[in-house]
Amino acid sequence: MSPASHPSIAPGSVIGVLGSGQLGRMIAQAAAQLGLKTHVFAPESGPAFDVASHRTRAPYEDEAALAAFADSVAVVTYEFENVPARAAAVLAQRRPVLPGPDALAITQDRLTEKTFLNKLGVPTAPFLAVDDAEGLARAVERLGRPSILKTRRLGYDGKGQAMIREGADLAEAFRSIGAAPAILEGFVPFVREVSVVAARAADGSYAAFDLCENEHENHILALTRAPARVAPETAAAATAMTRKIMEALKYVGVIAVEMFVVEEMADGARVERLVVNEIAPRVHNSGHWTLDGAVTSQFEQHVRAICGWPLGSTRRHGQVEMRNLIGEDVNRWRDLLGESGACVRLYGKHEARPGRKMGHVTRIIGP
Amino acid sequence: MSPASHPSIAPGSVIGVLGSGQLGRMIAQAAAQLGLKTHVFAPESGPAFDVASHRTRAPYEDEAALAAFADSVAVVTYEFENVPARAAAVLAQRRPVLPGPDALAITQDRLTEKTFLNKLGVPTAPFLAVDDAEGLARAVERLGRPSILKTRRLGYDGKGQAMIREGADLAEAFRSIGAAPAILEGFVPFVREVSVVAARAADGSYAAFDLCENEHENHILALTRAPARVAPETAAAATAMTRKIMEALKYVGVIAVEMFVVEEMADGARVERLVVNEIAPRVHNSGHWTLDGAVTSQFEQHVRAICGWPLGSTRRHGQVEMRNLIGEDVNRWRDLLGESGACVRLYGKHEARPGRKMGHVTRIIGP
Repeated sequence: MSPASHPSIAPGSVIGVLGSGQLGRMIAQAAAQLGLKTHVFAPESGPAFDVASHRTRAPYEDEAALAAFADSVAVVTYEFENVPARAAAVLAQRRPVLPGPDALAITQDRLTEKTFLNKLGVPTAPFLAVDDAEGLARAVERLGRPSILKTRRLGYDGKGQAMIREGADLAEAFRSIGAAPAILEGFVPFVREVSVVAARAADGSYAAFDLCENEHENHILALTRAPARVAPETAAAATAMTRKIMEALKYVGVIAVEMFVVEEMADGARVERLVVNEIAPRVHNSGHWTLDGAVTSQFEQHVRAICGWPLGSTRRHGQVEMRNLIGEDVNRWRDLLGESGACVRLYGKHEARPGRKMGHVTRIIGP
Repeated sequence: MSPASHPSIAPGSVIGVLGSGQLGRMIAQAAAQLGLKTHVFAPESGPAFDVASHRTRAPYEDEAALAAFADSVAVVTYEFENVPARAAAVLAQRRPVLPGPDALAITQDRLTEKTFLNKLGVPTAPFLAVDDAEGLARAVERLGRPSILKTRRLGYDGKGQAMIREGADLAEAFRSIGAAPAILEGFVPFVREVSVVAARAADGSYAAFDLCENEHENHILALTRAPARVAPETAAAATAMTRKIMEALKYVGVIAVEMFVVEEMADGARVERLVVNEIAPRVHNSGHWTLDGAVTSQFEQHVRAICGWPLGSTRRHGQVEMRNLIGEDVNRWRDLLGESGACVRLYGKHEARPGRKMGHVTRIIGP
């Protein structure tokens, strides 16, 4: 994984991306700016296909297609953490898969992820494994209410989750998440959600974008502000925590670590404490502001890292706000284009279904 | 050409680009950021083909291919001014061609262009038409030496030009430019070369990037600085002059107007005077700094204009320098990527031939 073991990754090479959504699209766009070509592999055509130089449409279970794809590229990366383990293994036999299969295995399962973090000394919400309705009852007894039941695998944007409030029917809650292996998380009374988007290269070099602050609506990211309104020590601690996680995973590429900020009183003073919520082993929606708000974008940074190239400057152009365009928000495209200083990015998706991320707008709102 | 006459140009539409070089590539990349698709038409495959959603490889004389291309897109634009008039006419019968055929006709011929400018009251170098060696001798007698012989058509990066110095053999000079219809230009003792990169929309709205300053080496642009080191009145005059030119052409899209700055003494004070050298009816190398140095890039601005969309903010992120990577310069890509704050853009060209533009580097060097 050292640059020396990637002699073929020079401008002109082809990088492989699993997934044809907007994240794959923006990775491909960043690769093109650096003179690289992109081969996108996905079961369904999507916005990344329109900007890639090569495309394969095949299921992740098609090992012959995966092998041919791997043989056509210099390195493989992905836009989503739920790459099937078998697909990752088939690819890794032939080409470097970055971030590595370890990062995938750990982050695909909430129980494994939280266990890994706690072993590392990184705080999370209290949690317990839940395998059935009885297990849920025992866990609720220990962690109290409110608490949150989440499937161990395959949840995103609030899917596969159920809030356990006073009076909630536990059997019904377990059914509502598909009666799948799950965890119960104790409620964290946070004042702010923040995330670190950072990159690590194979030589151990590390570069984090400034800590940013996120607001969700209906479990979907609505707004990111950079920098986050937290104490400088809190931002430094978040960045250090992220580096520790990346070191432990020998991580190569961009990661996003979502955290809660909890305010507490200590010795009569208000202090901020961080609790890690979730790791995404990939570029992340809360890093989209870097496209128009920083010298290097998270997408370019990811490409640099997986190619064994030096990481770029994470300097911000100012105080930045990024708003997602969800579903019909995108119909306001003409007004947004008419707003001076608004940087509008659209993903080229055909249909503005409710809850679908159609684009985003970045504004530099101050120096 | 009003937005109302472009009802089909919404995100998701396909724009047509003539030319598969780096300018076409960067137009396609900007279009993709706005959720548009691009169809590139060119006789030779080139770097734009790798990032376009559709490609046609055919000669500009293939009218059936041109017609099919036009039918597949919402609007046609181009990356170079030497689009054959017949091709432009075939396309314009079917779809808007922007900037319009007038802009092409006038800028394809140095004699027509300079005559147009002078009629508009825009100063140029003194010039005379030259049709043969005898005509050259008469022109040299009137304009003196040094002076510059240029073909009326198809010159770029110093090709099709000959400097007429003391003792130069005029017949030989005329042969050296291919004995083609030409003009002789009087020498302009300039202190600086500058350019205005600006956009005009169909509704008459106008937005210019800050005046920038250019240095050439071997007749090829080497360095652009923004802003140019000129008096504020000079910058304002350059911008106003460009707007006048665009109004006269009912221009829609991005233009680049190259000018010389001449210093003169007037009433005992040093004053700057502008002389227009050349108009490029397209995005331009001296505007590449806008990709990483301004809120909106010249490529996005061009796409906005030809789609009938509002123009974007031209605000700079700071004091900017853009250096071209010519020929083997590009072999320094790894060092450049390692330089903090350097934004490296590579065009994905296969072979680093001498004089070939392979990429560029933008640096924000001050606030």
